[in-house]
Amino acid sequence: MKAVGKISLGVLGCGTVGSALVELISAQADDIYANTGIQLEVSKIGVKSLAKKRPSVVGKNLLTQDLEGIVSDPNIDIIVELMGGVDPARKLLTKALENSKPVVSANKEVLAKYGSELFQSAKKGEVQLAFEASVAGAIPVVRTLQHSLLGEPVNRITGILNGTTNYILSSITESGMNYSQALKKAQELGYAERDPSDDVSGKDSAFKIAILASIAFGKALDIKDVYCEGIQSVDLEDINYARQMGYTLKLLATAEKHSLKAQKKNAGKSLAHAIAVRVHPAMVPSQHLLAKVSGSYNAIYIEGAAAGQLMLSGRGAGGEPTAAAVLGDILDLARRPGRSDGHLENTSRIPKVEVLPIDELSVAYYLRLEVEDSPGVLAEVAKAFGENQVSIRSMEQLAKNPDSFNLPNRIASSEKSDKKSLASLIFITHIAEERNFQATLKALRSIKSVKNILTSLRVMDFENY
Amino acid sequence: MKAVGKISLGVLGCGTVGSALVELISAQADDIYANTGIQLEVSKIGVKSLAKKRPSVVGKNLLTQDLEGIVSDPNIDIIVELMGGVDPARKLLTKALENSKPVVSANKEVLAKYGSELFQSAKKGEVQLAFEASVAGAIPVVRTLQHSLLGEPVNRITGILNGTTNYILSSITESGMNYSQALKKAQELGYAERDPSDDVSGKDSAFKIAILASIAFGKALDIKDVYCEGIQSVDLEDINYARQMGYTLKLLATAEKHSLKAQKKNAGKSLAHAIAVRVHPAMVPSQHLLAKVSGSYNAIYIEGAAAGQLMLSGRGAGGEPTAAAVLGDILDLARRPGRSDGHLENTSRIPKVEVLPIDELSVAYYLRLEVEDSPGVLAEVAKAFGENQVSIRSMEQLAKNPDSFNLPNRIASSEKSDKKSLASLIFITHIAEERNFQATLKALRSIKSVKNILTSLRVMDFENY
Repeated sequence: MKAVGKISLGVLGCGTVGSALVELISAQADDIYANTGIQLEVSKIGVKSLAKKRPSVVGKNLLTQDLEGIVSDPNIDIIVELMGGVDPARKLLTKALENSKPVVSANKEVLAKYGSELFQSAKKGEVQLAFEASVAGAIPVVRTLQHSLLGEPVNRITGILNGTTNYILSSITESGMNYSQALKKAQELGYAERDPSDDVSGKDSAFKIAILASIAFGKALDIKDVYCEGIQSVDLEDINYARQMGYTLKLLATAEKHSLKAQKKNAGKSLAHAIAVRVHPAMVPSQHLLAKVSGSYNAIYIEGAAAGQLMLSGRGAGGEPTAAAVLGDILDLARRPGRSDGHLENTSRIPKVEVLPIDELSVAYYLRLEVEDSPGVLAEVAKAFGENQVSIRSMEQLAKNPDSFNLPNRIASSEKSDKKSLASLIFITHIAEERNFQATLKALRSIKSVKNILTSLRVMDFENY
Repeated sequence: MKAVGKISLGVLGCGTVGSALVELISAQADDIYANTGIQLEVSKIGVKSLAKKRPSVVGKNLLTQDLEGIVSDPNIDIIVELMGGVDPARKLLTKALENSKPVVSANKEVLAKYGSELFQSAKKGEVQLAFEASVAGAIPVVRTLQHSLLGEPVNRITGILNGTTNYILSSITESGMNYSQALKKAQELGYAERDPSDDVSGKDSAFKIAILASIAFGKALDIKDVYCEGIQSVDLEDINYARQMGYTLKLLATAEKHSLKAQKKNAGKSLAHAIAVRVHPAMVPSQHLLAKVSGSYNAIYIEGAAAGQLMLSGRGAGGEPTAAAVLGDILDLARRPGRSDGHLENTSRIPKVEVLPIDELSVAYYLRLEVEDSPGVLAEVAKAFGENQVSIRSMEQLAKNPDSFNLPNRIASSEKSDKKSLASLIFITHIAEERNFQATLKALRSIKSVKNILTSLRVMDFENY
């Protein structure tokens, strides 16, 4: 591919992002030419339907249903894939790369599931596969991990990678709606799709953290190794309790190094670290910058050994921000053509990495129980924790009405209530192993005076920020 | 330069950052080799004094006082300049670049003052000059502007680019110290140097915003065009008032597009935009993410036309974070050698850009006055604003004791105080031209019952975030 001059683009897919890209290139082409000597031209746009109404800037003469024809067109310099989904994206990208056509893709699903395979194709074709737009829209997290932090030992990446769920959680937190009301509002405003299941289940975030973990830890992850829990059962009460205890509830996607336990290290294996990759609602200290990213914004927080704590935030979705990221990748490929950087294959940022099963995860927990308000119950409950090696950091006993929940007066309710009534207990544990916590839950369920295990949520701890 | 294999580094300067870099490379060399095929080797380290005590990882046999010898050594692949200051860095970098040696520099001063000249040298030598570490330590803002946002019309960059002053302002805001106490504490903790003048005067931030503006707006700025006001006269009272009015005081460095006024556009010139580049204390809405970046952290907020709002934050200084940024640049140059990207020369992101003189700036203001507490004074003061085309957004009349300042009761003090006493007035204006605001100040000074113009500060406005 030529380094400067005219660059012909073959765009696959012309939905929101595709249209925004065509518009952005049309608006910026002159400035880009003046700045870089690159003359961008959208030559063909592959679409499913020729009949669909599109913005006027999308020239009808560019549209074609022959997607295969685009990836094999010798006059096209870069393939820009904005279709999403696995089929037919996977086949088209493989063909393009193996025929030595560089690719820019915004497709999180195909990269999360088949990134490793696609990077083999890029290697075979000796071209690059760029994918900044596949994670968090315009936020330059892929480039930061691939380039700025290439020499950096990354300890943790955690972030808000889905704008829909952050919008829903922010609405619940800030205006006291319940989950269904907040979801409905998000749908009305266009932040959530009619079928929001990929967002609210955490699946969308799981694709994205799998991609980021692959870059940061040099391991092609099997998407099945990403533990995934959504926000569907999030309760306004817990959000309120969390807030009063100094936490804000966020759906976090996290990839982090975990030291393997000594006995495992000594069991004839040379592993020093495993990575844990997971998506779940998490209580974030309200003073942490991540807790303050609200509405439909995304943010990624990175802890590096030398670089320290970094946070990148901004618009994580939408036509224009995603198109901006795609354009950045196109210009990068056009200016610095060359072989694949191959970040999803054969690199190994930490020696012999393995993915930690969720039951070996160590994290702090928030737990809300409903118990009989009678003497001796707390002792029974505490015993269940202790016998399972889960240490309690703090406990609060609550009045029944969450509005009157007031930490300094927390004793009042149990004194006032009569013997037959129920009391709510909230525990925050020290860091414990998931399997021990699950065993604690099991033990609690067998206690007669424990009436309900209402909620358990993970609590994130951070270095000072 | 070879694309992979052994890369010999010649390091100029071995202070905090130099030592941290040598240490980081020594710790990461094996992983870097495994990931990239690049074998980094520090071949020579140029220093002023051979006698100075250094960490043991800095091999004595590598040290030399012959800096010229390093830049002309044919066995050295990349020059890493960590000396700071203009002399002898400018001469050494020019020589290295013109002899086709790629350079990584962390030197904000030489880049802000002579960047344009150095990029000409890089062009002549057909090599790259990388400088991520010159602005905001490990925060990848240079790479983001150069690559991710290359096709993006950037409207504004504003940020906290100096950790010392952010630490001082945060200490004043959070613990009620005065300026000298906060400065002393910062010095004790090593956040401020014994002579803090470059930091507190805003000069350090001015170098950095000049570099960022050069990239984003494609114009080599004369550092003299950067308006610069420090934090030396910041008053605890104003910080407290600001907080109660919903603002947090930050030292912001800003570069933004300004539309030129219609009459100027029609006066035979074809200019559509000018850029304003400035450093000054600013009142930031407390709900904005920038207001929440405290302590010694840095943050850069970017408003792009398509990408939307982005914020990057993290450790903006210190040996390790800066070394991490330097290492990222070294690996980038080693992996993708080639001609200079030339971002500080001959590019013109917006057509025919000019730098707006500060008196043509339009911004909102905060103004605190001490006036005679007598009837008619407010009318006189309001007239001074009105006659100078400065429109008032809000006005508060204060009790003398700032601790009792309470917006809902703001009328009380003037009713209680007797005729001879003084009252404090705080105004926040709508966006006004700097020259009109200065004219207002002049008019206020001529009013007999205006006893003191205590403080004026600029107020930042943002799109929702």
